[in-house]
Amino acid sequence: MTLLILCGGSGTRLWPISRSNLPKQFFPLFESGSLFESTLARNLHIIDKHCIAVSAKHTDLAIGDMGKKNVNASIILEEPCGRNTAPAIALISMALDPEEILLVSPSDHLIVNESAYKTAIARASELALQGKIVTFGIKPNYPETGFGYIQHEGEKVIRFVEKPNQEVAKSYLESGDYLWNAGLFCFKAGVFLTELKKYAPDIFQACQTVFEKQKDKKRIAPNREEMESIPSVSVDYAVMEKTDRVAVVPCDMGWSDLGSFDSLYDLAVEEGSQNSSFTQEDALFLNSSQNLVIARGDKKVVLVDMNDCLVVDTPDALLVMRRGSSQKVKDVVEKLRAENYKQL
Amino acid sequence: MTLLILCGGSGTRLWPISRSNLPKQFFPLFESGSLFESTLARNLHIIDKHCIAVSAKHTDLAIGDMGKKNVNASIILEEPCGRNTAPAIALISMALDPEEILLVSPSDHLIVNESAYKTAIARASELALQGKIVTFGIKPNYPETGFGYIQHEGEKVIRFVEKPNQEVAKSYLESGDYLWNAGLFCFKAGVFLTELKKYAPDIFQACQTVFEKQKDKKRIAPNREEMESIPSVSVDYAVMEKTDRVAVVPCDMGWSDLGSFDSLYDLAVEEGSQNSSFTQEDALFLNSSQNLVIARGDKKVVLVDMNDCLVVDTPDALLVMRRGSSQKVKDVVEKLRAENYKQL
Repeated sequence: MTLLILCGGSGTRLWPISRSNLPKQFFPLFESGSLFESTLARNLHIIDKHCIAVSAKHTDLAIGDMGKKNVNASIILEEPCGRNTAPAIALISMALDPEEILLVSPSDHLIVNESAYKTAIARASELALQGKIVTFGIKPNYPETGFGYIQHEGEKVIRFVEKPNQEVAKSYLESGDYLWNAGLFCFKAGVFLTELKKYAPDIFQACQTVFEKQKDKKRIAPNREEMESIPSVSVDYAVMEKTDRVAVVPCDMGWSDLGSFDSLYDLAVEEGSQNSSFTQEDALFLNSSQNLVIARGDKKVVLVDMNDCLVVDTPDALLVMRRGSSQKVKDVVEKLRAENYKQL
Repeated sequence: MTLLILCGGSGTRLWPISRSNLPKQFFPLFESGSLFESTLARNLHIIDKHCIAVSAKHTDLAIGDMGKKNVNASIILEEPCGRNTAPAIALISMALDPEEILLVSPSDHLIVNESAYKTAIARASELALQGKIVTFGIKPNYPETGFGYIQHEGEKVIRFVEKPNQEVAKSYLESGDYLWNAGLFCFKAGVFLTELKKYAPDIFQACQTVFEKQKDKKRIAPNREEMESIPSVSVDYAVMEKTDRVAVVPCDMGWSDLGSFDSLYDLAVEEGSQNSSFTQEDALFLNSSQNLVIARGDKKVVLVDMNDCLVVDTPDALLVMRRGSSQKVKDVVEKLRAENYKQL
């Protein structure tokens, strides 16, 4: 199986650990390294070949992290600008043998239950061999309004649905028929391209034109003009929601998209535990509970009489926030941008 | 007038900004530098000559800070171990002309109203010329239980009193007859030594013996055995509480001993203002009030939906604490010591 890690994102929802120069997937959040490294590590024994799709300015970060795991990128797509997921997956698929099974993974998600993950991948691989385009559906445990959902019966997809409102999300949770769309996919490269050509011929054609212009088919590096000739569309919209080859593997693998510090808290602070710290030296919590601390390993963090706080420390920025307020990080970033603050 | 700055302290009540290797008086708390530098700056135009009493391991820190202000130490007492204030003042006094007027100042206090300070010093200098031993009494604005008090009538001292309990402190505040003992003194060197010899002859004798052994009378550097031969006694207990030459200059100069982060908060966050930050770049407060932030100038600190917090950041340690809990810093330090944490 060939792994394609999508690491083009550079969101600010996790500022200050996510910066335009060091997006969250490359931030050393754990003792064991970054989320990108975790993604590599999780797949190390099930993957023969690695591909990455990365923003051109972060290529060195990605290759550096791969070096730490003694992994080489067989094919690299360096994007001068982001065009969403469908073009990235298409360009990489064009560089592969049509029969190769491709596992597409985001680089900035957390998966805690690796055994459930491996079971799900094994099943997806079987389905992909049968010509299916496989998605992974996470059993929801609360009515999240920030994700897309997949209505399903077993491995059969009934329909994909857009981000619901609170009421609808609650009804999805109660019905038990809906899964979160995890953004992980598995298929034969050739099957994906066939379906893309069928349902989004403009994207297929634009990608093919760009691909054919590339001298080095192992290091695909379109210029900005070439890249901008490709429509910016998600793989869900371009293919998944349309193809009749789609299947879903339901799974419960302790997944989080780490879209906010509150979601990181939910995942990190296990039921029954009081606080969590992403540090090498343990943080010291005095009469403090329900806190999440993120700091570099050599920093000693002490909380006294603090509850329900998110503390995120980096060498040049410190964020102290009430739990439940992490959606306001975007307001913080906007304000800092308005102040001409450079470290965003 | 000659200034003696007492900078032998190395308390842990302001950990992590106060360390055994960098006590709070040398920490660059302000844009303009450390509290020690502020002490120098405040006295720059009223002082002819500078002396320091300093822990031997911090001599370089003190001399470095003095260099920044283009000030030389005429006489240095390097203490191999602390023996409280009476011996330090006595040893320096022995190196001065008996007629010299000595202003003794702690190095780790904050004085916001410099004009009131200068007025008080001018009056103290007049009284010292008349042979008085002058203390400075701060008008209390709340019933502090951590300070000694001076009962007074004008400039006449009725009595010194030890740290009161809460009830007694309240009665002192209500009576209007009591002042906080600020630990600042002014007298002729010779008058002080005469009174010390009279009321604490053992200390006087021990100091004289040590002083006579010193080869360099400008850089007094007793060895540990010599220093330990001197009783460890405060100047209040040895002289102030006993001599009939004592006088007090009442003043209201925005004084704080910075004994805790809460006292720093009280001083820094002025009435009506919402938050305070000791940083070069302003901290960003989003829907946050009644917070104090202490951080290095190049660190961006952001608080979101946080109230009543004390945030103290240093390169290797971060303390986040509820307001009112700053007495617990000693518990923190004890716990860290028990963990064998080195940066205390």
